[in-house]
Amino acid sequence: MNAQELANKILNTPLINEQDTLKQATRGVVDYFASSLQAKNQVELQQFKDWIMLEGGNKKAWLIGQKQLVTARQAALFNGFQAHYLDYDDVHATVRGHPSSVILSALFASIDKSIQRIDSRRFLTAYVIGVEVMARLGQILNPKLYIRGWHSTITLGGIAATCAIGYLHQYFFLSDAISLAATQSSGMRFVFGSPIKALHAGIAAQNAIQSIDWIKTGLSLPQNPFDEKIGFFMLLGDQYSVEDWGYDWEKNWQIHQLWFKNYPYCSAAAGIADISYELRNKILNISDILQIEICFYVNSDAALIYQKVDITSQGKFSAEYILASILLNKKLDFQHFEQSQVEPCICQIMSKIHRTYQNNEVNPKKVKIRVELKNGAILEASSNFPKGSPMNPYSNTQLKEKLELAIGNNSLSQQLYQDISNLKNGINIQDFIQAYQSIL
Amino acid sequence: MNAQELANKILNTPLINEQDTLKQATRGVVDYFASSLQAKNQVELQQFKDWIMLEGGNKKAWLIGQKQLVTARQAALFNGFQAHYLDYDDVHATVRGHPSSVILSALFASIDKSIQRIDSRRFLTAYVIGVEVMARLGQILNPKLYIRGWHSTITLGGIAATCAIGYLHQYFFLSDAISLAATQSSGMRFVFGSPIKALHAGIAAQNAIQSIDWIKTGLSLPQNPFDEKIGFFMLLGDQYSVEDWGYDWEKNWQIHQLWFKNYPYCSAAAGIADISYELRNKILNISDILQIEICFYVNSDAALIYQKVDITSQGKFSAEYILASILLNKKLDFQHFEQSQVEPCICQIMSKIHRTYQNNEVNPKKVKIRVELKNGAILEASSNFPKGSPMNPYSNTQLKEKLELAIGNNSLSQQLYQDISNLKNGINIQDFIQAYQSIL
Repeated sequence: MNAQELANKILNTPLINEQDTLKQATRGVVDYFASSLQAKNQVELQQFKDWIMLEGGNKKAWLIGQKQLVTARQAALFNGFQAHYLDYDDVHATVRGHPSSVILSALFASIDKSIQRIDSRRFLTAYVIGVEVMARLGQILNPKLYIRGWHSTITLGGIAATCAIGYLHQYFFLSDAISLAATQSSGMRFVFGSPIKALHAGIAAQNAIQSIDWIKTGLSLPQNPFDEKIGFFMLLGDQYSVEDWGYDWEKNWQIHQLWFKNYPYCSAAAGIADISYELRNKILNISDILQIEICFYVNSDAALIYQKVDITSQGKFSAEYILASILLNKKLDFQHFEQSQVEPCICQIMSKIHRTYQNNEVNPKKVKIRVELKNGAILEASSNFPKGSPMNPYSNTQLKEKLELAIGNNSLSQQLYQDISNLKNGINIQDFIQAYQSIL
Repeated sequence: MNAQELANKILNTPLINEQDTLKQATRGVVDYFASSLQAKNQVELQQFKDWIMLEGGNKKAWLIGQKQLVTARQAALFNGFQAHYLDYDDVHATVRGHPSSVILSALFASIDKSIQRIDSRRFLTAYVIGVEVMARLGQILNPKLYIRGWHSTITLGGIAATCAIGYLHQYFFLSDAISLAATQSSGMRFVFGSPIKALHAGIAAQNAIQSIDWIKTGLSLPQNPFDEKIGFFMLLGDQYSVEDWGYDWEKNWQIHQLWFKNYPYCSAAAGIADISYELRNKILNISDILQIEICFYVNSDAALIYQKVDITSQGKFSAEYILASILLNKKLDFQHFEQSQVEPCICQIMSKIHRTYQNNEVNPKKVKIRVELKNGAILEASSNFPKGSPMNPYSNTQLKEKLELAIGNNSLSQQLYQDISNLKNGINIQDFIQAYQSIL
């Protein structure tokens, strides 16, 4: 499937009407607002906003949570950064990255006042399509793409978000924009543990906005970003021959596989956190511990790049740091992971932890912790599916609570939850945006 | 050498005082203006400028040739696009790409009115350092990077231009900015033959500006973009172990290897063009040709991706198109490569051409054409070093002529040539910029 075929498939997709898919899409939008609004006052985001104000530009698109309009590129960049800032936004296993912070940031940024009416089901369908494209690209390239060192959120997100915008506005030039997004795709995994990981979501969303905008200026380019010799799959995956990756379009939308996060750190550590809380209650005295083994499915810890950490922000990507902190009864809230020195008592426990690996064909998400105490006793716990993952999903009530926690104002959060849920009924999304951009 | 070591090396480089290196740098600046000003009225650039005006923003940096100030990111983006638009700007063999359109665009964009004084030798030294970093990255990764499908101009240019800006303004946070530029590096070669190839130079220059600006907002990140496991060299070149690539810094600056272009098309076709003009005079009747062989050094035609062309803009990257057009006495000027249909008579000659390959350890630039006529006669011609390349360089007079052709105003171009040449004498580059931004 080349860019033209992909564009045709997308542009010809009918509005989604199945209620379960529309509902899941609104759940994704709720989670996006919860993740974004939870982060909105972070110092680094506010400093980044100051830079946007210094750059200036015509005020077109909503800076979510900031009651501001900025240029479309700036809105995409900032909103993506903000949504992913706490690493609290949704994740998708096939993508090995964060679809909604890229796709929804790009979609919102693509809408300005000049557009009178957009059916909210078209908006949700565009979102579903974006997630779909990102997951299908991930299916071809992962796990190799991710393990090698690329950060799929940006590497795959720019193309996916471009597809979403192309559908939303029915841009006939979508195939050109897909190609232009492909040639701007990048992002390296070495930045994990720094705010740049979050900025990647913004860069990808900005890639989508500028791909669309630049093609609109009249540029055109070849339609073969997926060329078998020098194309995207070959560059990033050594894949000379790609099967038809457009099969079964409109069947089993991948948005149903979104994973809404419980904790503000890497989802690869979520199962560990679940069982660490369980183990904490069984260990009477932390000094009784002789050693701890974490047993992973091979490569399922690729995102957990820090076995030692210097500053707490790196701890978001350290199984050892999270396990040790929980055993020590530390409160792992949002503030906890701001850049500061790691307490020596945490390092001490971390030094007792080692990783082992085994193949588990049935459930690669499974993780096991085995604690050996000095008196020879063994404590064990294992997790199959962390809370929030597709096999153990959030309830609507839990999602509503996540939004309330982020907003800190019950009536406003209830209203927002209600209005987002209504998007599945075909209202004008412009009314939604106009109403909230002066409040949030 | 990690990012911190690279940054230290750069920040501690003394101002260059050797006259031959300073002179070569001013020659690069002359060529940059010639290439940029030759392109400034092209329709696609003007449309792109309209988009910039729509985006708006605080007017800080010079849009070269347009008598305008725009934001620093917009200036870097547009100026890079413009300088490389006609594919008439300099090229470097180790880079396998176009250093100056990226580095000079980023350097100029980094200077705004708030800066009182910058020694022009510091500016030239920053430029030399940018070219140096780009060539050293290319030395490690090429030819594989390029052949695989990456467009080095953008993939290597962002980091290089960031280094140049970091030196110019002595930013202590340069290592962070290098890392941030690395994670934004991208660019695919499938776009060759479309204006997006030129836009890559702008995207790389914008990458440099935004890397510097975003770090200035207070972001920081790990210093290991060149990590041996998941770093830049591994991602792009499968290179697990990189030797010290900072050896012999300040010796034999790579800027002396810049190649100033004679023709507005791919430098890989320059030798072919030189000898095609020679052969044209020997062929009495074009219909006498039975077949033509072009013999390349293995892979030296990697950039010449079109053996058949649909539109003339693709012809810039087609040995066959350029050879056939010259034999047919077509005038291959700038207008010739605007996007239009290819004349059937050119296609007819193209169909008689085939490529062969041989190893030539002595001179990989060597190319040979062998024409077989219907009467059995054989005509041959070969090129060792095309005009403008480091072994057959432009004279200053020729560079001056290139600038004059672009400006079309002799007194202005002579003044500009003189003022650029004066940059080696340590004047205030702000005076130069202030003077010319209202004229050009």
